[in-house]
This record gives sequence, C-alpha cells and structure tokens, in this order.
Amino acid sequence: MASSLQLSTPPHFSSKRSSLFADGGLKLTRSSKLFLPSKSDVLVCRCVATSSTEKTVYTTKVPRNANIAKLNAGYLFPEISRRRSAHMLKYPDAQVISLGIGDTTEPIPDVITSAMATRSHELSTFEGYSGYGAEQGDKKLRGAIASTYYGDLGIEESDIFISDGAKCDISRLQLVFGANVRIAVQDPTYPAYVDSGVIMGQTGSFQKDVEKYGNIEYMRCNPDNGFFPDLSTVPRTDIIFFCSPNNPTGSAASRKQLTQLVQFAKDNGSIIIYDSAYAMYISDDSPRSIFEIPGAKEVALEISSFSKYAGFTGVRLGWTAIPKELLFSDGLPVAKDFNRIVCTSFNGASNIAQAGGLACLSSEGLKAMGDVVGFYKENTEIIVDTFTSLGFNVYGGKNAPYVWVHFPGRSSWDVFAEILEKTHVVTTPGSGFGPGGEGFVRVSAFGHRENILEASKRLKQLFK
Amino acid sequence: MASSLQLSTPPHFSSKRSSLFADGGLKLTRSSKLFLPSKSDVLVCRCVATSSTEKTVYTTKVPRNANIAKLNAGYLFPEISRRRSAHMLKYPDAQVISLGIGDTTEPIPDVITSAMATRSHELSTFEGYSGYGAEQGDKKLRGAIASTYYGDLGIEESDIFISDGAKCDISRLQLVFGANVRIAVQDPTYPAYVDSGVIMGQTGSFQKDVEKYGNIEYMRCNPDNGFFPDLSTVPRTDIIFFCSPNNPTGSAASRKQLTQLVQFAKDNGSIIIYDSAYAMYISDDSPRSIFEIPGAKEVALEISSFSKYAGFTGVRLGWTAIPKELLFSDGLPVAKDFNRIVCTSFNGASNIAQAGGLACLSSEGLKAMGDVVGFYKENTEIIVDTFTSLGFNVYGGKNAPYVWVHFPGRSSWDVFAEILEKTHVVTTPGSGFGPGGEGFVRVSAFGHRENILEASKRLKQLFK
Repeated sequence: MASSLQLSTPPHFSSKRSSLFADGGLKLTRSSKLFLPSKSDVLVCRCVATSSTEKTVYTTKVPRNANIAKLNAGYLFPEISRRRSAHMLKYPDAQVISLGIGDTTEPIPDVITSAMATRSHELSTFEGYSGYGAEQGDKKLRGAIASTYYGDLGIEESDIFISDGAKCDISRLQLVFGANVRIAVQDPTYPAYVDSGVIMGQTGSFQKDVEKYGNIEYMRCNPDNGFFPDLSTVPRTDIIFFCSPNNPTGSAASRKQLTQLVQFAKDNGSIIIYDSAYAMYISDDSPRSIFEIPGAKEVALEISSFSKYAGFTGVRLGWTAIPKELLFSDGLPVAKDFNRIVCTSFNGASNIAQAGGLACLSSEGLKAMGDVVGFYKENTEIIVDTFTSLGFNVYGGKNAPYVWVHFPGRSSWDVFAEILEKTHVVTTPGSGFGPGGEGFVRVSAFGHRENILEASKRLKQLFK
Repeated sequence: MASSLQLSTPPHFSSKRSSLFADGGLKLTRSSKLFLPSKSDVLVCRCVATSSTEKTVYTTKVPRNANIAKLNAGYLFPEISRRRSAHMLKYPDAQVISLGIGDTTEPIPDVITSAMATRSHELSTFEGYSGYGAEQGDKKLRGAIASTYYGDLGIEESDIFISDGAKCDISRLQLVFGANVRIAVQDPTYPAYVDSGVIMGQTGSFQKDVEKYGNIEYMRCNPDNGFFPDLSTVPRTDIIFFCSPNNPTGSAASRKQLTQLVQFAKDNGSIIIYDSAYAMYISDDSPRSIFEIPGAKEVALEISSFSKYAGFTGVRLGWTAIPKELLFSDGLPVAKDFNRIVCTSFNGASNIAQAGGLACLSSEGLKAMGDVVGFYKENTEIIVDTFTSLGFNVYGGKNAPYVWVHFPGRSSWDVFAEILEKTHVVTTPGSGFGPGGEGFVRVSAFGHRENILEASKRLKQLFK
C-alpha cells in the first residue's frame, strides 16, 4: 500500500530530494541503486497525496510551516551520509573512505579526555556534583577562551557565550535577528547559514533556474576574485555571514580584505556573523579573528568551535563572542538579546564537555590541539599534491582542512557520484554549498593517514 | 557617563525588568539592595537613550527583533538566580538554601558516571574515537528509550530523537511549527513554552492588565478544577502544551482527564506537545506517557529528559518522541520536519552524555535512578508536611518534586521576597509561571536532606 511506505519511512531517511533530483520525483531511499524516477513513479507519489487528503488516515488541522516547505533539499551532510550508506549497501565489501562531511577521525588528546573523565567521576561525589550551570557557560571557560583567543583584542569573559557547537549557535542567532532581516552569504558557503534563514522566514522561495532562494544575497567567491566577493557590487543587507578560513573553498581572507569587509559593514550599518571555526588551520598571516580588524567590534560577532581543533565533533562544544559595542539600530546591545535566547532556548553545554574545553586551553592542551591540527594539515598537503599532480586546478588547503578542486564544465554531483562509484571515496559536491560551487568538489583532509594515502592512490588511478 | 553604565553591564546581568517592576523603571542589578526607582532614575535612563540616538556611539542599522522586544521579563529562572545573588551580597554570611529553580543536588549514581568516564577515555583511542554522531542520536540509546519508556505503546526507535534537554527541544519544536500557529498553555505553566512562542512571533504584545500575551490561550488550572482545565471553555488552538506531572503545580493528570484531552485535540485537529519530564515521580496510577491514551499517537508528541531522574541538569540529555502517525493537515509527518530542524539547527547531544543515558537505562542504572527519585520524593513529603502543619493549603508533591503552596490574597513575589529575606530560603513565585500562579509559591524538593530539614525549621519559625 502506497501510504504505508510513506509512514514506515524512518525520519532520518526521509530527507527531501537533493538538488540532483531538483526536477522532481520520488526517490526510493532504501533502494540499493540510485535512480532517476520515471513518470509512473511520480504518479504513484501523487496517489499517496490523494489518499491522505481523502482521510484514509487521520490528519491534524495544523498546517505545515510554509518556511520549512520552502527548503529545497535535505540538509547537505545527512544527504551525503545517506548516499554513502546506499553505496555501502550496493558494495558491501568495498573499503569506503570518507573525505566528505568533514568529520574528524583522530583520537582526542589524553590530557583532554582525562579531564572529562575526571569531571564525570566528580559528578558522583557530593563535593564535585553540580546541576544546572550558567546558560552562558562556565565562567572559567569563558575567561580562558577570552584570554586565549582574544587576549589583545578587547573581548572579555562576559562577551563569550559557550555553546554546544557553532551550528547550534547559528540557529540561535537567527532567532535573535528574526524573520525581517535580509542576509548575505558567500557563494559557495556552509549550508546552515542559508537553511536556518529559510526556516526563520527571511527568504523567498527557492528559484530553480538560479539555484538560489529569493531575498538572500549570494556573494560569489571564485578563483577569478580570489574567493573574496567584489563588495562594490553587493547591495546592503542587515546580516553578512562570513566564514574564514572558508568552508568549503578553504580560502582565508587577508587582513586587507577583512578591513574592506568591516568598512563595508560599517558603511551599511550591517552586522557580520563571522565564523572562525577553522582559524587554527591558518598558516600565513591572515587574521585568526575578525576582531583583529580595527572597528570590527561595532559591526561583528564571531562564532567558533572546538570541533576541528580537538576532535570535539561528537563531544559538542563551541562559543560565540559578542562585543558589548555591537548595537542594534535602537542602541540596545545584541549581546543582551542573544543572552535572552540562550536563557530561553538552551541550558548550557554539557558540564563534562566544558571541563574538556578548559583542558583544551591549558598549555598542554593547546600544544596537543596544535598537534591534531598539524596532523590534518599534513593530510591536506597530500590531497593538494594528489590533485595538483593530476593537473587539476586546486584551491584552499593552505589555511584550512579543505581542498577545493575544479572540474570545469562538469556537474559537482556527477563528479561526486563518479568518484564514489569508481574509487569508493566520499567527497562533497561543490554545488551543495550554493550555485557558486558548481563544477567543484570539496575534499576534506580529516582522515587516518593510511586512508588519505589510499584515497590518493585510488584517485590517481581514476584520473591518471 | 550614563552610556558607559549600559555598555559595561555584563549580558548575564542585563535581563529585562521582572514583572515585579512591570510598571517600568531602571533596576540597578548590582546594587546590594533591591529598590523601586524614583522618577529621577527614569530620567537618567532616558538620557542614555537620547545619547545613543545622537550617535555618541556607533549603532548598526539592524533593527531589533520586535518579537524579542515583546518579552515582558527576564526568563524566570535566571531572574531568580540573580535575586539570590543580590541577597547573598546583602547577607554574605547567610546560609542560603535554594528550593527555587528546581536544580538537582544529589550526586549522579556511579554506574552512570563510570560509563561517561569510560566513554571519555575511549575517545582517546583509535578504536573508541567517534566524531559526528547521528543528529537524531545514538541508535542504541534511541532503542533503549523506546523499549524502556514506550515498550507496549507502539513507539519505536526511529520515533525517538535524542536532545540536549527538553528546554532545547521546545525551541526546536517551535521552529517546526513556525509563527503562524496559535498555542494553548496550562496556566500556570513552565515559562519556556510561552517565551519560545513569543520569540517565534506567534503572539501579540504582553497585556499588563491581565498579565498575558495576546493570541495565547491560557488554560486556567487551579484547586477549583483539580488543576485540569475546563476544556468546554477552551477554544481550538493548533498546539496545546501540556505538562504532566505539572511544573509548577505538581499535579498529574489522571487517565480520564488525559483521555478527555486527547479527544479534545482530535475533535479540533490540534497537536499536543506533552512534557513528561517528571513522569518517574508519579506515585499513583496516572499515566506516565500520553501514549498510554488510545489514539494519542495521532495528535501528540512527547518531550522528556534525564535531568530530574539522574541528576543530568548539567550533563544535558533528553528526548522527544514523535509518532509516525502524527501528521500535518497536508498529510506530511511532523517527524519529518522535526528531523529537518534537528539536522539544520543541532548536531546531536554530546556522545559522552549519550553514553551516560545508555547506562541510565541498564537494569542497574534504572534502579539507581529510582533511588534518586525516591530520595527527592522523601524530601517532598517533608516539605508537604511542613506547610500542612502550618495550616497552608498545599498541592502537588504526591506525583512530582514540586509543592504548590497557597498564600491567598498575597502577591507571589512578595511572599517570595519575605521568605528569602527572613529565612534565606529561595522559592519560586507562582506568578512567574503565569497569572494563574498568583498567590502561590512553588517549593522545589531538590536539595540535600539537611537543607530541606533546615529550611523546614526556618519556615516553621517564620509562619508559626
């Protein structure tokens, strides 16, 4: 029965169709083979809809949120994870190597996990137990982040809000700004900025011809402009999401470029949401924080994370720095409203994760994190060398754990599918990051060394 | 300089004025004494506003979110925490006992913290390391929750979404439903339902005369109706938040009452967001889950938490169960859109906390959690006996760790202030939970036994 198919699909497999299938149709997610649907499949799909409006099953009278209905595709990374699973069903014996979703693979340094284990055990003692922490995070950790990353930059303990990761704070920031702001994003960009804006109701519908949502300003970043937007052509928006070193292009903006960006925001009265989650990967003298730019505290806030420094992707810990100088048009501080959102929609990051964060910022922890970052940077070099030796134009890699490889004239999803099919290596199709990513593939440097070397071998075989 | 006062106020002290000061004015939050402002203070405050519009400081052109501006007061619990701090400044030698914010105090059972410590250490090994987990949570934990709490009720592993706590999922659920739904809440109720609805833009302004937001249906629950609303007088809303055992009244709805509620939702095509975070405290045969009521899966979802069972208020772990049968008016499953929000706005609960959750649901863990709950229930009896012996009308307590004490004709905030001033015991003013809580004070049973006994002694002294 068609309707039972719909109901029995587990939620985590029921993501909407990806942009590969943007022209419509039903996708059988548990099929062992990806396929484009025939016309008859589409008709079957319509039968389900008809059946449900005929009330063979009970439906509430609550309308679906029109903003969520606007979302064009499943969130990119679960979609890739789903395709990887489908591939593994098809080739159960294949050694699949994931250089896709940017997931860390190396163990967390012992100095950090020991601190978390100690904190866990303490929670079983009368002296060591604690319940609700401050929603804004542990005072010591806030202080340590302020002094470690913003020591000379005038960012204080009380400006730091501890989070369970940058992605979570992006949505909380969207709650602060609400539906009536207009956002700009780099194109290509990390999809959570756009998707969370769509969910908040900031955008128009997805326009299939240009692969963009209405009312978002997409600031094209490509090799021609050195991956920094031509700000003279960008109209004013309220909010500018800016990620540097950039995910996915791996490009870090220079001091001169960021100075331009801050001046642009100041001229327009815009707020920059600066994502510095990869700052520790910077090798050259590009700024590690937007607050290195004079005047930035009046127009910018910064989100960051321990995920890619200490392997905390699963432990969940990050932060947002909001200077007291950052004010809404009515003169009220942005930090005050963010604080209200944090108190209403969040209850603080796990106290055990926060103990880990504090250990990360000890002198031993900082050294250990540096080693982790250094290891992934060596991986990055191997990947850059691989694609360069094959004659591809390769970007990123120097200041970020991402390598951005150009396949001119080809569809990103086709390249993704070819690489997966022929080498069992998972990458990320560039167009998943926005229309400006079309023709590129992002290769992540997170992986065990032997897997990186093996992937390199297979890629050389494929593209030789 | 007046404007520097505004800028130097740390965000976590800058919550808006509470309803105690609802008639306006500036509150000096770090003063050692609470006071109502004189007219001249208000004028100072206006000077700040004038000065900022005269651009002595830079302001962006980004307007403040009008929905956040609607919020009448600081989120209740940080506000109480702030008042407690002010009291401790005033009486630095007082032994302040908090029976206020419902924060757990007893150590987490060793079987649970040992599992978390083990998981922490594993993260330092190649075999035990893991990065991003599924956004929906660990499959084993989802399965264990489904079988432990919903074994006979038709809720499956894939219906369970692991969260970092019920409060966080309330806001994520609000993102699912969006701005264009109307909500109903019990009155009094846990403030996060209302506040998150205000932030989403579902409501009108706060109406000071009735102490309610426009466009929210407040379902009065008081001793006269046995703390269950008279549904014959309640108009249809899209969403019905329903917490049972209730925070703050401590009352658990009976099977008959919940059957009425489910029928009411079905007749209206409404969705019940059922909060069962205190279900393990139930002593009688009241349902532990809304899904015990036949037909509930078509009209309800359920949020819950390990916070009050295992002392996880700081560890952060909860879940939401969304049956596949729960459908929007267009026949699409609610779980599908919640999954999309979880994937976009969340990255899963901490893997260490999730290991703790799995240990909670082992046979040893379940027994240990039962002991923790039993301990707090003994505290509850002491508090009930204390107020009963003093001649107060006392509600709740039997099925919940909250005791709801009636002070007829008095302001809740006045009673709160008197108890704090004269006994150094922190309670929670009932009116902080809605206008229906006026004249009541909530006393939480979370505390060390000696503190509960000491508080009892002091209260007997005060009210003898």
